[in-house]
Amino acid sequence: MAEHPVLIGGTWRPAKGGKTFQASNPATGERLSDAYPLSGWEDCDAALAAAAEAAIELRRTPPEAIAKFLTQFADRIEAAKAALVEMAHTETALPKAPRLGDVELPRTTAQLRQAADAAVEGSWTLPTIDTKNQIRSWFEPIGPVVVFGPNNFPFAFSGVAGGDFAAAIAAGNPVIAKAHPLHPGTGRLLAEAAVAALAGTGLPAATVQMIYKIDHQSGERLVSDPRVGASAFTGSRTAGMALKKAADAVGKPIYLEMSSINPVVILPGVLAERGSKVAAEFASSCLMGGGQFCTNAGFVMLFADAKSDQFLDEVKTAFDAAAPPALLSDGVAKGLAESVKTLRGAGAQLLTAPGAGANGARHPNVLLRVTGEQFLRQPEQLQTEAFGSATLCVVVRGVEEAEAVLSHLEGNLTGCIYSDSQGSDEGLYARVAPALRRRVGRLLNDKMPTGVAVSPAMNHGGPFPATGHPGFTAVGIPASLRRFGMLCCYDNVREHRLPAALRNKNPNGRMWRLIDGTMTQDSCS
Amino acid sequence: MAEHPVLIGGTWRPAKGGKTFQASNPATGERLSDAYPLSGWEDCDAALAAAAEAAIELRRTPPEAIAKFLTQFADRIEAAKAALVEMAHTETALPKAPRLGDVELPRTTAQLRQAADAAVEGSWTLPTIDTKNQIRSWFEPIGPVVVFGPNNFPFAFSGVAGGDFAAAIAAGNPVIAKAHPLHPGTGRLLAEAAVAALAGTGLPAATVQMIYKIDHQSGERLVSDPRVGASAFTGSRTAGMALKKAADAVGKPIYLEMSSINPVVILPGVLAERGSKVAAEFASSCLMGGGQFCTNAGFVMLFADAKSDQFLDEVKTAFDAAAPPALLSDGVAKGLAESVKTLRGAGAQLLTAPGAGANGARHPNVLLRVTGEQFLRQPEQLQTEAFGSATLCVVVRGVEEAEAVLSHLEGNLTGCIYSDSQGSDEGLYARVAPALRRRVGRLLNDKMPTGVAVSPAMNHGGPFPATGHPGFTAVGIPASLRRFGMLCCYDNVREHRLPAALRNKNPNGRMWRLIDGTMTQDSCS
Repeated sequence: MAEHPVLIGGTWRPAKGGKTFQASNPATGERLSDAYPLSGWEDCDAALAAAAEAAIELRRTPPEAIAKFLTQFADRIEAAKAALVEMAHTETALPKAPRLGDVELPRTTAQLRQAADAAVEGSWTLPTIDTKNQIRSWFEPIGPVVVFGPNNFPFAFSGVAGGDFAAAIAAGNPVIAKAHPLHPGTGRLLAEAAVAALAGTGLPAATVQMIYKIDHQSGERLVSDPRVGASAFTGSRTAGMALKKAADAVGKPIYLEMSSINPVVILPGVLAERGSKVAAEFASSCLMGGGQFCTNAGFVMLFADAKSDQFLDEVKTAFDAAAPPALLSDGVAKGLAESVKTLRGAGAQLLTAPGAGANGARHPNVLLRVTGEQFLRQPEQLQTEAFGSATLCVVVRGVEEAEAVLSHLEGNLTGCIYSDSQGSDEGLYARVAPALRRRVGRLLNDKMPTGVAVSPAMNHGGPFPATGHPGFTAVGIPASLRRFGMLCCYDNVREHRLPAALRNKNPNGRMWRLIDGTMTQDSCS
Repeated sequence: MAEHPVLIGGTWRPAKGGKTFQASNPATGERLSDAYPLSGWEDCDAALAAAAEAAIELRRTPPEAIAKFLTQFADRIEAAKAALVEMAHTETALPKAPRLGDVELPRTTAQLRQAADAAVEGSWTLPTIDTKNQIRSWFEPIGPVVVFGPNNFPFAFSGVAGGDFAAAIAAGNPVIAKAHPLHPGTGRLLAEAAVAALAGTGLPAATVQMIYKIDHQSGERLVSDPRVGASAFTGSRTAGMALKKAADAVGKPIYLEMSSINPVVILPGVLAERGSKVAAEFASSCLMGGGQFCTNAGFVMLFADAKSDQFLDEVKTAFDAAAPPALLSDGVAKGLAESVKTLRGAGAQLLTAPGAGANGARHPNVLLRVTGEQFLRQPEQLQTEAFGSATLCVVVRGVEEAEAVLSHLEGNLTGCIYSDSQGSDEGLYARVAPALRRRVGRLLNDKMPTGVAVSPAMNHGGPFPATGHPGFTAVGIPASLRRFGMLCCYDNVREHRLPAALRNKNPNGRMWRLIDGTMTQDSCS
């Protein structure tokens, strides 16, 4: 059985490494037949060399050509939908419908098309012109971007087709993608679609490169190589922190999306008003996709009373009724079991784990409970992320204890507060919201955090350790593009030497520019 | 002799540390009489506790009140101008006029007033509204900001009054300032003006705090403390990298402005056209302020020909005519001597160092020369920053060698190209500019980089090691404010709970907001 080649410098060629690996079907435990290569540093080095050349060429490429590629790529993904959904389903056990085919794939193509529009329109670059001093600045491409995609979104966060990829390309940079080794076949099909989509665009062939798997040392060398502009990583805290350390040491920007328990606070009034409805909504969000979302609620705070007990009973009933899902891999199931053990070791009481004893990639849905007092005794351990469907309920005895618990929370992607519609929770909301706000990237009302709309106003980010910097978002165009831009100022540079976006004439009549303090789509007067 | 108190929690109180230090007058070598305290961790801890409280209060403070403080502070600085200029001159040996009184002080107050305007106008927060999905986001204050001011700008980059301070406050954060121990008296007078300016604004007293000196360990604890939002540092690469490592390890943003040699490329045509004029401009920029500017040209590239020899002769003559300046301290003079030694050790030939043998804080102005070939043999050593007036001339033998030299340059704040006005340099410019562009934050034409206009279009930043991230600028409002903001998204949050900037009604009728994809000053329809 021949091993699949890697995509380097515009061609599919054999990897230099020697070792191979195979993915598995988590639903059946069956090992899949295709062999994929583990790349050594030689492959990384070749990809970097090709990317450095491509970056120079891309800087001379009009945004319309970049947009053409992104749009053609979206078209190709749609054309290959059946094969992609089949492959991703086999490799991840995620449902073909609605999840893969009706939600994640359309989301992925929508991101590519939005990124194409943003590239052409150009306002993401924040062009700023001072005609009196003849100083002009904007964001230019930062250089080759390395994207490490995660295990849990084979399309929408894929290193070779997802949100980071789309943003990096739209900002004018070549991408070196690391496919995720749990779904290499999906990565391969996406990369094949990308190669086909490059045709006729005039973009350099090395705009898109892909390797499947590398060792930790090569990963750390990759993100800190002088030829790299920036990196983006979505995955575990351990892996993310190792890459961050390497990149930080040489001042290379790295955007990380690591761990998050996404606290949900349910105030007493809303439970009195519509407790069963909230319980159903909550349980459904926790259980969806085996809980394998970055924004899955791993923490819910309730105020001790009879209604909260009833809420917990109803959530338990929903968990009990759900069969143990096949998670993304045996490793994910093992990691979840470890985290649950840590949580229980710190005093969390097991409310239910229906189907416990399931093995392989299957793991029961776990519901745990602690009091606020217990939480405050071991706040660090009780914030252990349990990736998969496990949720810790923290039952507090009043607003002071609630504030104390919140003040111990680390940074998270999301935080959510449910309150009643008549205003009886308003006083509690005013106490709880400010503490939660400072610790999360996105604050929700009366809505579970698992949906991440691809909206310009979205923030899929937050304070450390949810990410590495609270000023950036991985989702939401145009903001996500700016992560891959470098601020470039032109001082007294002659008009004909300026980039088109900074010349007197507005290059497309649509780009918003800050000219002498005024935001305008006009040309310089 | 009593030691001066530190400013913590709104009051001037004795430092907890026990040790004191005194500043010197670098022009005379005389030790100044005032004793200033070295603070221990206890002071840092108290400042952090007060700042954390102040940060919560500031979030509830209207931007108009913040602007009032910044404006009153500018007024107070102007009122105290004579004393400030006198003190800064005594502590730094920088000329009272034009430098301190006519350039740096007005620049400082202009920055404070621009920051005030930006705080009130509010567009720096990039409000983004999606009315269909009810998702809204903007930048909110990041939390307490620690500002480490540098030695070379006692006013304009002061931790307690300079650009980072103004940006952090305007973004709604309290500041813990570390005054620079070379000019503690200047820091004290500025802090006294700040305290007076807080009166009647309603801002918390701990909005501005100041300590004078701390040990390295306390500095590293400070920037990585959980109560800190972000830090800003301007100074040496060694100190900056130590702070960066501590902050990075716990995901705390730190904005650094470290080292830069600010390459200048002078093309043959311009030397033929107006060589003497360029030589005069160049020498004057190199010699100004003892060369102690972040953007001082430490590197100039020339193409080997008779005109370049003449240029070097003329620059040498100008250097010869200049007396050895009093640098900011004996330490700065020693550091400069060390760097010059390193450069000479790597093969640089000494063209002149008039007044060599001067001692104390006085150091000759140094002009050095290497060939491109020599540079390429030891590019790292030959990029050693020599803080003070020392410039290395690199003479290359053609465009290939020029490109090779540029490709070895580290990240810099600025890069500059002089070319002739008739187009004879255009071909060379096209070869040289792209390589330089990627390595600098600000690219100049026909102009020395030492002036840093406070313009919205300015970028006082650049790739590592000039700074820690190429997407941020330390000068230029509104961009500099965004360093101290955290991206905050509101998803389905009820209208009355939203910050004013994200409600349907435009809060001041002037704020630019991206509503449903359209940039507008209107309210939501």
